[in-house]
Amino acid sequence: MTDQSDTQKPAAPEGQKMWGGRFNAKPDQIMQAINVSIEVDKRLWAQDIAGSRAHAAMLSQQGIISSEDAQQIDTGLATIAEEIQSGVFPFRAEYEDIHMNVEARLRELIGATAGRLHTARSRNDQVATDFRLWVRAQVDQTIVQLTDLQQALLERAEEYADALMPGFTHLQPAQPVTFGHHLMAYVEMFSRDTSRFADARVRMNENPLGSAALAGSPFNIDRFATSAALGFDRPMGNSLDGVSARDFALESLSHASICAGHLSRLAEEIVIWTTPQFGFVKLSDAFSTGSSIMPQKRNPDAAELVRAKTGRITGALVALTTVMKGLPLAYSKDMQEDKPPVFEAFDSLDLALAAMTGMVRDLTANTARMKAAASGGFSTATDLADWLVRNLNMPFRDAHHVTGAAVKLAESRDIDLAQLSLNDLQKLEAGITDDVYKVLTPEASCASRQSYGGTAPDQVRLQIERHKQRLS
Amino acid sequence: MTDQSDTQKPAAPEGQKMWGGRFNAKPDQIMQAINVSIEVDKRLWAQDIAGSRAHAAMLSQQGIISSEDAQQIDTGLATIAEEIQSGVFPFRAEYEDIHMNVEARLRELIGATAGRLHTARSRNDQVATDFRLWVRAQVDQTIVQLTDLQQALLERAEEYADALMPGFTHLQPAQPVTFGHHLMAYVEMFSRDTSRFADARVRMNENPLGSAALAGSPFNIDRFATSAALGFDRPMGNSLDGVSARDFALESLSHASICAGHLSRLAEEIVIWTTPQFGFVKLSDAFSTGSSIMPQKRNPDAAELVRAKTGRITGALVALTTVMKGLPLAYSKDMQEDKPPVFEAFDSLDLALAAMTGMVRDLTANTARMKAAASGGFSTATDLADWLVRNLNMPFRDAHHVTGAAVKLAESRDIDLAQLSLNDLQKLEAGITDDVYKVLTPEASCASRQSYGGTAPDQVRLQIERHKQRLS
Amino acid sequence: MTDQSDTQKPAAPEGQKMWGGRFNAKPDQIMQAINVSIEVDKRLWAQDIAGSRAHAAMLSQQGIISSEDAQQIDTGLATIAEEIQSGVFPFRAEYEDIHMNVEARLRELIGATAGRLHTARSRNDQVATDFRLWVRAQVDQTIVQLTDLQQALLERAEEYADALMPGFTHLQPAQPVTFGHHLMAYVEMFSRDTSRFADARVRMNENPLGSAALAGSPFNIDRFATSAALGFDRPMGNSLDGVSARDFALESLSHASICAGHLSRLAEEIVIWTTPQFGFVKLSDAFSTGSSIMPQKRNPDAAELVRAKTGRITGALVALTTVMKGLPLAYSKDMQEDKPPVFEAFDSLDLALAAMTGMVRDLTANTARMKAAASGGFSTATDLADWLVRNLNMPFRDAHHVTGAAVKLAESRDIDLAQLSLNDLQKLEAGITDDVYKVLTPEASCASRQSYGGTAPDQVRLQIERHKQRLS
Amino acid sequence: MTDQSDTQKPAAPEGQKMWGGRFNAKPDQIMQAINVSIEVDKRLWAQDIAGSRAHAAMLSQQGIISSEDAQQIDTGLATIAEEIQSGVFPFRAEYEDIHMNVEARLRELIGATAGRLHTARSRNDQVATDFRLWVRAQVDQTIVQLTDLQQALLERAEEYADALMPGFTHLQPAQPVTFGHHLMAYVEMFSRDTSRFADARVRMNENPLGSAALAGSPFNIDRFATSAALGFDRPMGNSLDGVSARDFALESLSHASICAGHLSRLAEEIVIWTTPQFGFVKLSDAFSTGSSIMPQKRNPDAAELVRAKTGRITGALVALTTVMKGLPLAYSKDMQEDKPPVFEAFDSLDLALAAMTGMVRDLTANTARMKAAASGGFSTATDLADWLVRNLNMPFRDAHHVTGAAVKLAESRDIDLAQLSLNDLQKLEAGITDDVYKVLTPEASCASRQSYGGTAPDQVRLQIERHKQRLS
Repeated sequence: MTDQSDTQKPAAPEGQKMWGGRFNAKPDQIMQAINVSIEVDKRLWAQDIAGSRAHAAMLSQQGIISSEDAQQIDTGLATIAEEIQSGVFPFRAEYEDIHMNVEARLRELIGATAGRLHTARSRNDQVATDFRLWVRAQVDQTIVQLTDLQQALLERAEEYADALMPGFTHLQPAQPVTFGHHLMAYVEMFSRDTSRFADARVRMNENPLGSAALAGSPFNIDRFATSAALGFDRPMGNSLDGVSARDFALESLSHASICAGHLSRLAEEIVIWTTPQFGFVKLSDAFSTGSSIMPQKRNPDAAELVRAKTGRITGALVALTTVMKGLPLAYSKDMQEDKPPVFEAFDSLDLALAAMTGMVRDLTANTARMKAAASGGFSTATDLADWLVRNLNMPFRDAHHVTGAAVKLAESRDIDLAQLSLNDLQKLEAGITDDVYKVLTPEASCASRQSYGGTAPDQVRLQIERHKQRLS
Repeated sequence: MTDQSDTQKPAAPEGQKMWGGRFNAKPDQIMQAINVSIEVDKRLWAQDIAGSRAHAAMLSQQGIISSEDAQQIDTGLATIAEEIQSGVFPFRAEYEDIHMNVEARLRELIGATAGRLHTARSRNDQVATDFRLWVRAQVDQTIVQLTDLQQALLERAEEYADALMPGFTHLQPAQPVTFGHHLMAYVEMFSRDTSRFADARVRMNENPLGSAALAGSPFNIDRFATSAALGFDRPMGNSLDGVSARDFALESLSHASICAGHLSRLAEEIVIWTTPQFGFVKLSDAFSTGSSIMPQKRNPDAAELVRAKTGRITGALVALTTVMKGLPLAYSKDMQEDKPPVFEAFDSLDLALAAMTGMVRDLTANTARMKAAASGGFSTATDLADWLVRNLNMPFRDAHHVTGAAVKLAESRDIDLAQLSLNDLQKLEAGITDDVYKVLTPEASCASRQSYGGTAPDQVRLQIERHKQRLS
Repeated sequence: MTDQSDTQKPAAPEGQKMWGGRFNAKPDQIMQAINVSIEVDKRLWAQDIAGSRAHAAMLSQQGIISSEDAQQIDTGLATIAEEIQSGVFPFRAEYEDIHMNVEARLRELIGATAGRLHTARSRNDQVATDFRLWVRAQVDQTIVQLTDLQQALLERAEEYADALMPGFTHLQPAQPVTFGHHLMAYVEMFSRDTSRFADARVRMNENPLGSAALAGSPFNIDRFATSAALGFDRPMGNSLDGVSARDFALESLSHASICAGHLSRLAEEIVIWTTPQFGFVKLSDAFSTGSSIMPQKRNPDAAELVRAKTGRITGALVALTTVMKGLPLAYSKDMQEDKPPVFEAFDSLDLALAAMTGMVRDLTANTARMKAAASGGFSTATDLADWLVRNLNMPFRDAHHVTGAAVKLAESRDIDLAQLSLNDLQKLEAGITDDVYKVLTPEASCASRQSYGGTAPDQVRLQIERHKQRLS
Repeated sequence: MTDQSDTQKPAAPEGQKMWGGRFNAKPDQIMQAINVSIEVDKRLWAQDIAGSRAHAAMLSQQGIISSEDAQQIDTGLATIAEEIQSGVFPFRAEYEDIHMNVEARLRELIGATAGRLHTARSRNDQVATDFRLWVRAQVDQTIVQLTDLQQALLERAEEYADALMPGFTHLQPAQPVTFGHHLMAYVEMFSRDTSRFADARVRMNENPLGSAALAGSPFNIDRFATSAALGFDRPMGNSLDGVSARDFALESLSHASICAGHLSRLAEEIVIWTTPQFGFVKLSDAFSTGSSIMPQKRNPDAAELVRAKTGRITGALVALTTVMKGLPLAYSKDMQEDKPPVFEAFDSLDLALAAMTGMVRDLTANTARMKAAASGGFSTATDLADWLVRNLNMPFRDAHHVTGAAVKLAESRDIDLAQLSLNDLQKLEAGITDDVYKVLTPEASCASRQSYGGTAPDQVRLQIERHKQRLS
């Protein structure tokens, strides 16, 4: 440990960062630097304008502002939307955030009438509404992407419903399964992810607008009208909760983190499967990078990046969870830090889903290598034991004993179980019949696992059908 | 930094830990120490036995084992359950986990027939089933506890529906609200928490049993029968997913983390409210600890511990998320580390909910201090501005200007807004009438906020009624 | 839970995100989107150029390239540095990252000679070097900022070395301390934070350059020369470690997270102290935001934002920890995701330190309110008990009993302990003398706590002096 | 989403948890349940007694208590230590924590004199001291374990200093390295981990005892004396900091998390290397589990469990970070939750280090398979390119072009680069001489990478020697 008394005092590096070099920064510069959010929250522009238009229309319907004023406001906001979309809108740091940037521009466009827009509204319920609309739209998009990924998996599962591969435990081959069956495990995961996002969407679809600063409004506002206009199911039932709740964001981040975890598992498998040692799967140049001088080297960059995104998304969840911990009601400025983690997480998830869907559609399975790997290692030993239990009514333990002996015999001769003669087998257990060979190949092993959800190709196809119907 | 070349080599402290002092530990001792889980997973005993009984009954119904064997197994398992409940069951580390402890004991009780129980089953689907049943039961209990907490809040909200307090932003008094309204914000949060757990319960209520090791079973098992027996809605649709999925646990931890975040906010408020400086609320001796010599000092220990539990629960979520990141299918031993975080999180949440419910029922509000705090600081300035907009149709900005002048005037005389004469006010804006005084007291301010979800006592009572009906 | 079978399929929202709307995106577009890092890593430009210049100079010294080539390369790189600083450098996404952007531009500037720069180097050791240099510079800057913050605290601690305030436990006043003593607690924390960063700097100051792709180089390079040129203490001792180590970044994030935690504690106190209920401290307009119509309302925005930054920084730590978990050696593409969390964390810490230093210099203590709060609540009860133990040799427990009785008596008369007559006190314990009054005021209580590190103003000044010398 | 209005209300499950079933629990039962910590903090018993003995001795030396009292106290505490070690100490929940259990027992053993022990001390500085002593001892032990692990790695690195294996990037073979070189990368990581813990130890080695409740003590205590007695370098310089600082614990958790991350990387590699597809490494039965009927299946359970411990440790870090966020000074009850994460993390790290050290000593490398894997895939293509640059002074880019052509030629003939005739090579580039074959085998490739820290066996041995000397 460096002795504290002679800690060296290095000079602040040039140009490294925002404040380090500027120790003459005045307090108001520091305050502006930490306070300004426009570079982050301008992504909410569409939601901000949509919320304002709905609010203005409602104010007019309720007679709180005149229809002329409402019309002017609406036209002004439409102009601003166009300006932003076409890239000519003058975003200005001195107006701090997207709400004030829009409001200031509206005043420039339509004059003092702009001031009526903020009647019966506060920045607190405005930002809560904007952010909720943004997250809702993002959840909708994620569901679309998850659906696309499931469809890609279903297509490939159908293609490979009979293709043998080893089923792994501890990354050691355990029992034969089919590649289609393996891919269908991910369809199950992503269908639950979809369902989680769908639940979150229903739960978050309540309108904070009209909560005003925190206590509700003395104006005769119609919160059901703005709810309808913005696609919300109903207004939120408590104004303090309306401006201070961020659990809709936390829940979305949680679901994103779980989904990213699922993606990381498949990504890890792709990384392993594309090694020359495994050689189960090949990605095209579109999803791997090569080397000009090592033509056989294909780096599964996309899979690695998908795997890494889990970290970013989980980090974002921890970030917002920590920000919200122990915050008293109602609005605290801490909550301005809610958006960067959410934006970061959904950008990451968006890319990861797109890349994974692309890889699933892109990959080529080396079915020969997969099958060979599924055939070695006495992978049907369990099938022999099960046959003994099923056909000779042996207790499990005895069946295991006989099987162990058969494996040892085959091992000593360097052959597979299926290559042992009936005579050999009957020496170990007299009751064994010719019928046993039906289960000793990996194909037979797979085909026999007809239990609901098992790896028998018929079962796999049945599950594919079930999911196809769900998604159709 | 200590130079690496002379890092001191301290002796391992005596008795500090498990392995540090035992450098002569043999490999098998180390392996046993890291591998054994019985001290943790024995909490799954009831689920393990329930799962085994359902499995045995199904095997018999399907003719896979005889009804005599099934009966023997069932009786043996019932005996084991009684042994465990009465504390006489011999848990043994050499049997590693709860599953093998039960199985070994069953063999002692009923002999070789015990071996038939494991037909068409593997430890992989067995532990997946046990754990899922445990989490489901815990989610059920959490919902009961959350319901109780909401009821406590509703009772107190009704009691304090008219009690004035400052509504805070940035922990600065902003506008008057009622204490009932404030409490109802938490009812909203906890109702969403409840709904999250309910959704998770539906989603997790699928049966992994019958997935066997990972590929399904060649026996003619009936997974719908065991599903029904164990209260599952249906069997899981993919056997690989059946043994490798832990998103049900992650989702439950996510919801627990969000819920703990809500608890931390209320706990923080209780800590602040019980300071002598605020003095809004008092906890009885049951939920605070005192000092024999400082009688006025009441430490809100329970609230602080509730607040701290957020950390434990979020830590547990991160732990399991990290464990599961990038695990290939199907079962990896890493997944044995799934239970400690889940047990820790639900123990923490359980205690935090019980303590918070107790505190909500226990606390006494000092309504006089709350009201005084709500009355100072020109807390109705916004109401004056709103009155000007509403009654004189002034643009918002002009209304603010007039209000600012009124506040300055009152401040200069060290009086409240409501104490300014009509004459004084009319000097600032001629259109002001006597009617304005209706909004200048905190009572009037609250009463005026009649918008849906606003703090007007009538609104608060309406929301209380809505939630009461939901919970009834 | 939404039934999975009828999950609604919402249209992807317009303009929300990068990929959601573009389902016609071609694989190479997806790959580019997830792969390109130039928008992030261009912040490494100065380090990248410094590393390349050191590398080229060494190649020339070792006779691996000619001095003419080295000169050309150096001039070209200097030109590029100027272009970037003056904002005219053409950053291009097709060159993916900062390294290739610089290299491509160098080729444009000096032709084929540019190709010699990459001799005996790989992008793997290049990026490891750049990133390490960046983090090192950032750590240096953080130390400068932490020193500035400590100096600000020392100045204020000196100013308030005698100013009484309540020392809190459980946010309840416990014993009188001085405000100077309270501020000095943070000097201790930030001095440890400084020392942590200083240790990390020493540890990270080893040079990865020369590790090449992962195996070292067959060229006769001199890694000690590049180390010296770049300010590294020595080359790293293992080339695989050189390209795959990121613990220097994780350690820096850990220290940043701990430091942010300290900042969050002081920020929380400022938020509480600036409430009208406490009123201990006031921030000027520079560090708080007000309301045009509620002049007394000062929102401690800067303190809240500092508090929130803890979340961002801890989230970044979790992000990178998760990314690195379980990555095989040596370089994996996952590691490209190392920079965003580190940039985010240091940007956050930078702002938080600047804002906190500004607030410490800015704040005004209301010493009268602090003293009043320190005087109430029988805050010297412990002092009475200690006096009894010290002067009458009473066992602690008996002393507590007598003190409790004295407090009750004072409470019943609504006076302070110091207002009880000697007669009253002697009725409780005959041995009490006039001397006792020396400890019954908060001033006396503070002054008596002369133990090393205690709150007695002399002690506080002694500690201030010690820290001043450390920092000078 | 389940409609909130008909959330089912399941019965609380039997025996599931602590509070769920007991809705009749009285407030004091709930409070006790959340408040009591003896089951957790009894692990601090040795530190608690050591701290008390040092405190009593100092009190006597300073004349604050009599030497007779001090003697009685010391004897009583020694008796308690024996009682605890021999398992006969009566731990009692009604005394809440370890401190009060010891104190109550001391009173039973020596009567009222026990009460003098608490003179000039508070539970706040007592627990801070105990916990710091515990963490310090644990850090010492971790350093011992890390040293043992490094020694194990050094032994194996020496054994395999010449053994070829592929060096991987993206888990794709990139260039030949030696297995010894690969193992040495971990020696570097664990040496930095050691150095981190050593730094933390120096920093934490300051004595909180004497901070008393928070303000220091009016007694004439000698904090330097207790520091010396307890092995601390000095007393902490601020009493508020003394009772509220927990950064020593957070720093230790951070270092544990980074170290666990390193362990997870090696564990992941062991999992991959032990697959039949890789077959690089074999673990004995001591560190893997098998199957009675699949003799070739060896599950690397220990490696998987080590990998999983990363999650537990990172979770613990997040837990305590979250607990401490935003806590005002000095002591808050939240801090009682500091111990479970720290205990959990160090138990996990302890086991993980022991298991990894065991595995490193246990594993057998299949050098033939490793070498074969290092030889394929034109793994020396880079060496050819480097040869061209080095010997013919070709620009890098041209050298790559020639190399690409050579690889294509070899690929078309299904031979290795070294099998191309000189004639073939000269057709591609006339300047190539016989000398080139010296770099085209994996052995030659390794041997050529003589740069400091490179994979050349001589370099590897030099680094082994350097680390041996460091550790000796």
